[in-house]
Amino acid sequence: MTIVVKKFGGTSVGDVDRIKRVAKRVKRSWSEGNSVVVVVSARAGVTNSLLDRAYAIQKNPTDRELDVLMTCGEQETIALTCMALDAIGVPAVSRTGWQAGILTEGLHSKSRIREVSGGDIRKQLRAGKVVVVAGFQGINDSGDLTTFGRGGSDLSAIALAGALRAKNCQIFTDVEGVFTADPRIVPDAKKIDAINYEEMLELASSGSKVMQTRAVEFAQKHNIPFEVRSTFSTKSGTAVKKKVKSLEDTLVSGVAIDKNQVRVSIVELPDRPGAAAAVFKVMASAGVVVDMIVQNVARNSKANLTFTVPSEDAFRAEKALREHLKEGAGGKLGKSTNIAKISVVGVGMRSHSGVASKFFEALANAGINMLMISTSEIKISVAVNPEKGDDATRVAHQAFGLGK
Amino acid sequence: MTIVVKKFGGTSVGDVDRIKRVAKRVKRSWSEGNSVVVVVSARAGVTNSLLDRAYAIQKNPTDRELDVLMTCGEQETIALTCMALDAIGVPAVSRTGWQAGILTEGLHSKSRIREVSGGDIRKQLRAGKVVVVAGFQGINDSGDLTTFGRGGSDLSAIALAGALRAKNCQIFTDVEGVFTADPRIVPDAKKIDAINYEEMLELASSGSKVMQTRAVEFAQKHNIPFEVRSTFSTKSGTAVKKKVKSLEDTLVSGVAIDKNQVRVSIVELPDRPGAAAAVFKVMASAGVVVDMIVQNVARNSKANLTFTVPSEDAFRAEKALREHLKEGAGGKLGKSTNIAKISVVGVGMRSHSGVASKFFEALANAGINMLMISTSEIKISVAVNPEKGDDATRVAHQAFGLGK
Repeated sequence: MTIVVKKFGGTSVGDVDRIKRVAKRVKRSWSEGNSVVVVVSARAGVTNSLLDRAYAIQKNPTDRELDVLMTCGEQETIALTCMALDAIGVPAVSRTGWQAGILTEGLHSKSRIREVSGGDIRKQLRAGKVVVVAGFQGINDSGDLTTFGRGGSDLSAIALAGALRAKNCQIFTDVEGVFTADPRIVPDAKKIDAINYEEMLELASSGSKVMQTRAVEFAQKHNIPFEVRSTFSTKSGTAVKKKVKSLEDTLVSGVAIDKNQVRVSIVELPDRPGAAAAVFKVMASAGVVVDMIVQNVARNSKANLTFTVPSEDAFRAEKALREHLKEGAGGKLGKSTNIAKISVVGVGMRSHSGVASKFFEALANAGINMLMISTSEIKISVAVNPEKGDDATRVAHQAFGLGK
Repeated sequence: MTIVVKKFGGTSVGDVDRIKRVAKRVKRSWSEGNSVVVVVSARAGVTNSLLDRAYAIQKNPTDRELDVLMTCGEQETIALTCMALDAIGVPAVSRTGWQAGILTEGLHSKSRIREVSGGDIRKQLRAGKVVVVAGFQGINDSGDLTTFGRGGSDLSAIALAGALRAKNCQIFTDVEGVFTADPRIVPDAKKIDAINYEEMLELASSGSKVMQTRAVEFAQKHNIPFEVRSTFSTKSGTAVKKKVKSLEDTLVSGVAIDKNQVRVSIVELPDRPGAAAAVFKVMASAGVVVDMIVQNVARNSKANLTFTVPSEDAFRAEKALREHLKEGAGGKLGKSTNIAKISVVGVGMRSHSGVASKFFEALANAGINMLMISTSEIKISVAVNPEKGDDATRVAHQAFGLGK
C-alpha cells in the first residue's frame, strides 16, 4: 500500500467549485493506485465568520468553547470534500481530528500534537477509500476538542504522514514552492527543487510566508519529508527533507525579507551583569518574541542595547520597557523605527567562509547601509532601512548567483 | 441535585441576540439552585445553508457525510451558548452529541437512540456548571456521527432528561404550549395545562405542529414527562405526562387540522383477498405513509378503496399505483383531490359514547359534508373539502365546549 497525504489549505477549498477541483486532483492520484489521505482546512472566510459571532457574544471568548466553534470549519470541509469525491466515483470517508486519533496536549487554540494513532485510516485505505481528515484539530486527554493555531493543518498533514508512514506528504498551497527569493521582489527568483529542514525553518522564520515554522519543526524533529507545491498547477514543487544531495555545493539557498519588524533600542544601559538579561525577561513576560539582538561594547560603563520585535508587538514591548526603566533599571528608551530584515540562508555556510563578506560587500557597493547584523550557523541577517529592503534582497540574490 | 433539561430550538437561538436571551433565561434557573442541562438546535437557517452547499456539490449527497456536515450546525450553537453564559457569569461547558454519550443505531439522517449514557454531565453539574448539549445528533457503534431527522433536538432533550433522571424537561418553542385548536383558526382556543402522551401523539400526528411525533413516542415509551412552553414568555406551558388528573372528565382535549393530505382512490378494485393488501404494499415500497383508509362494501365483486397520503408524496404514490395497476392488478386510479383532515382527540372517548354522533351532527348542522371517516381509540378524524377545513375546526371546537 503506497500512502500519500495531500493537504489543501483554506484558499484551495474556498468554495464549492474549488472543492470539486481538489476532488478531481485527488482522483488522479487515487486512480494511479495510491492510497490517498486528504487533509483539509476550513474554507477561506469561514473561520473569520465564526470568530465574528463569538466576539459579538463575548469580548474574550472562553478558550475551550472557541475551539469547539473553530473545529466546525474543517468538519464542514471534510464532509463537502467527501461528497465531491463520491460525485466523481471515488469512494471517500471523512474523519474529524478526534476520529483520526490526533491526540493533543497543551493550551486550547495552540495545542501540540502528543500522538497520532490514525484511528482506522489504514483499514479504510485498504478498503480502497480515500480518507479525508480535518486539519488543525485534535482531542486532548480530557476529551476536549482542541486546535493548533496558525498553520495547524500543515502540522496535521505532516504528523499523519509520519504516523501512517506515507510515501510522501504534499502541502498544496497558492505558490509553486519555495523560491530563492520572493518573486514579486526579485523577478528572476528560481523555485528551489529541494531544501533541507533547517534551511526551510530559517527561511520560514525570516519572512518567507510559504509555511508556518511549527509544522516544519515537527517534520524536522520526526524526520518526515514533505513537498510544498501549487494547488493550481501540476508542476512539481519544493521537496523538504533531511539531506539534500549535493547541497553542500550550494553556498546560499535563498534570500528572505521580513518587513514586519521594529527596532527597539535602549541607550545608556548600565554595563553590569544582568542588566540586559533583565530587559529580555521583561520582554518574555510581555509575550514579545525578540529577534535580532545587538549590544555594542560599553563606554563609561554604559552600553547601547538594540533588538527587533514583530511590528504587532512593538507597542506592548515599549510599554513594558518604559515601566521597567521607570523602576530604576537604568538606561533610556530610544526611538523605535521600522526596519526590513534581509536574511541569506544556506547550509553551505557551515563549511565555507566568505559568505558574510560577499553579502556585506554587495550591499556596500549598492550604497545600502546596514543597521544591525545577526548570524546563526546557516543564516546571516542584516537590518536595513525599510525603503532599501527590496533593493537589498535583489542585491543579495544576484551576489550569490541565485537567479535563473 | 435537582436537574432540569431545557431545550431551545433553531428560532430561539437564531442569532447572537437571541442566544444571549436564552443565556439570561438559563441563568435565572441556575441562580435558583437548579443543575441545568441545555439542549440546543442549529441556528435557524444554518442547516439550510449547509444543505445548499452539499446539493451544489452532489445531487444525492452521501448519507454519512451529510450527517457529518449537519452536526456542525448544533456544534456552533453549543459553543456560542456557552460563551453567552460565561459572559454573564455562569460557568458553562459544551458537549457534542457523542461527548454526551448519545448512542444511536439505524440509518443516517434518521437514526434512533439506542442508549444515552450522559458522559460526564453529572460530574460537570456537580461542579456547578451548566452543560450545553448539541441536540439532533449522536454517534453509532461504528463511531460515525449520525442525526435524528426532524424534531431531533426534542428527542435529544427528552432522552437526556430520562437518562439523567431530571426533575423536569422543558421544550421551549415559539408557541405558548399545546392549544385546544390552532388559535389562528379558532380565536377562543385555550392553552391546555396538562395532556397525556397518547393525546399529545394523536394531536401531533393530526396536524398540530407543536412537536414531532418521534420525541413524544420516546417520552411515552420511557415515561419521561416534559413541558412545552414559550421561549418568549414566562407563562407556564403544557405539561405532557402519563396520567393527567381528572382527565377522564374531559371528553375531548383538542381539535387538530391537517391541510397537507391528498385523497387517492382506486375504483373497481377486484373484491378478492389480498387485492387491498397489494395496494398498500406498493405504497410502503414507494416509502409513502398512508393515513386514513376507507373501503366500501363490494358490489358485483368490485370495491372502491380510498386513502389519504401526505401532499408531498402524492405524485410518488400515483406513479407507483399506476404501474401496479398496469401490471394487471385490476381496478382504476380515480382522480386525486386535496382534503383537510379534522381530528377530535381525547382519552375520555374510551369511556364515553356519543362523541362521534356529537361531532358528525355539528358538522351536518353547519352544512359540512364528510368525505371520509376514520377512528382510533382516542381520536375521530373526518376528511372534508379543503375550503371547509377551518369552519369544521371551529364547529368541532364549539361543539365540545373547548373555548375560553
